[in-house]
Amino acid sequence: MTTTTADFRHWAGGLQQRVEARLQALLPGPDLAPQRLHQAMRYAVLGGGKRVRPLLAFAAAELTRADPERVVIAASAVELIHAYSLVHDDLPCMDNDVLRRGKPACHVEFDEATALLVGDALQSLAFQLLAEYRLADDAAAQLEMVRLLAAASGSRGMAGGQAIDLAAAGTSLTLTELEFMHIHKTGALIRAAVLLGARCGTGLSPERTEKLDHYAKCVGLAFQVVDDVLDAEATTATLGKTAGKDAGRNKPTYVSVLGGNDARKLADELRAAALSALDNGDERTLRLRQLADFIVDRKF
Amino acid sequence: MTTTTADFRHWAGGLQQRVEARLQALLPGPDLAPQRLHQAMRYAVLGGGKRVRPLLAFAAAELTRADPERVVIAASAVELIHAYSLVHDDLPCMDNDVLRRGKPACHVEFDEATALLVGDALQSLAFQLLAEYRLADDAAAQLEMVRLLAAASGSRGMAGGQAIDLAAAGTSLTLTELEFMHIHKTGALIRAAVLLGARCGTGLSPERTEKLDHYAKCVGLAFQVVDDVLDAEATTATLGKTAGKDAGRNKPTYVSVLGGNDARKLADELRAAALSALDNGDERTLRLRQLADFIVDRKF
Repeated sequence: MTTTTADFRHWAGGLQQRVEARLQALLPGPDLAPQRLHQAMRYAVLGGGKRVRPLLAFAAAELTRADPERVVIAASAVELIHAYSLVHDDLPCMDNDVLRRGKPACHVEFDEATALLVGDALQSLAFQLLAEYRLADDAAAQLEMVRLLAAASGSRGMAGGQAIDLAAAGTSLTLTELEFMHIHKTGALIRAAVLLGARCGTGLSPERTEKLDHYAKCVGLAFQVVDDVLDAEATTATLGKTAGKDAGRNKPTYVSVLGGNDARKLADELRAAALSALDNGDERTLRLRQLADFIVDRKF
Repeated sequence: MTTTTADFRHWAGGLQQRVEARLQALLPGPDLAPQRLHQAMRYAVLGGGKRVRPLLAFAAAELTRADPERVVIAASAVELIHAYSLVHDDLPCMDNDVLRRGKPACHVEFDEATALLVGDALQSLAFQLLAEYRLADDAAAQLEMVRLLAAASGSRGMAGGQAIDLAAAGTSLTLTELEFMHIHKTGALIRAAVLLGARCGTGLSPERTEKLDHYAKCVGLAFQVVDDVLDAEATTATLGKTAGKDAGRNKPTYVSVLGGNDARKLADELRAAALSALDNGDERTLRLRQLADFIVDRKF
């Protein structure tokens, strides 16, 4: 099976455009005060990125046949959290990276103080969207969506994973420790994207929700394993961000712990585990299955 | 009228302890992984601060006789947003301040990367609290509380005010421009504190809500005017943060624009405007009235 079926590309491309257009409209306009901040927020979010988390939200939403108008808001909120984390991660006191999505990082194009505020304000905007639009049939379910995204973003989720990552630089980790880090750093937000997408609709049983969460956990880890392989093997031009930086920083990665071949094998195992959590006889799982392939087979 | 009545001090002291105890319990424990991040989050939030925003939330909650167990959560969420903003504002790329609440700033006690993540994670935690606990009789009203706090924190609220502040350094502002900055930078969160407190209960008419918001707007500006006066007149030891730093940075302040005497007069006028928005015959406005006095008459 390959991810590059015309059907999948058409589906993904359409949604990427839809998310981009919606983010354009949801972000404060560049002429609105404070203009420089709003321009920098738009710079950090628009016109780049694979939008993997939004695609996962839409794919999961198929399970509950959720209204796409709801899903695009939830997906945008998740993407704003992701975009804020990239802006802050690139800052000199963190990863000190100057290149992101093929463009100068936000703090390079603007300045450090603005980039700091961009991240802060994008996080606020994500929660504002989740509260402002009607995303679930009852408001209590929507509050649960807010809680879910907040927990995934915070110290026991993405921000916590970043802290573990910082502490790990220059040390060697076991595979278990590495997994613990990534379950937080990238996994938490990917799981939130999947669950929020499904929760824009109703009727997913607790058992199927749990299986969906297992799919998301496996796909999230696979995403990171592949990221590490690409960082070690690809070029900066292909990635649109600095390649080889993990090794340069002496950061533990799946490649440094397992070697490139075994890391590739692990990604395949995780894909298989993700797929086995889905009901492959149910056509509504098609996009989730295709996305698992896309995430593992991607070259950038 | 003086703010230092024993009755007011007793009320405020009890609530400050209650908020402190609740924040202690709500923040992840220092032994929970990632430990350094959680220790730094606790360092940044606990054991300091006047807790003005929580006091305002409790005072406004009297109008609707809201359950204090709800108010303390809403107040804690607002205080977490405030604490995160202080941590980020003190960073070298922003105000580069080393002293906060009489202690080394978070990035000095820990490190810059940790302080960045502390702020990020405190913001997430604030929204997690607002979604996790039952704070209003119906969930739709509670979603509106989330929206309100998110809007107050974001690019058209607090973060936006900080961006305007940055851009203003080294320039001269008119009184109107200065007011515009502070309505965002400190005013938005103070208004959110007041409105969230009242919304933990029910029954406040739209007219009284609007008057309460006017009170909050005036008190928020008065708070900043007094801050500027204290920064110009007080000592670092009294303030627990670096005094005289506005002038040192050539930042426009109410003192630089109006002079010390007229700034004091403006604070008094704003207090009078705040009080006139309250129904002074209603005993439930007592704490709001006392707080307006406390904010204007404070020496630290």
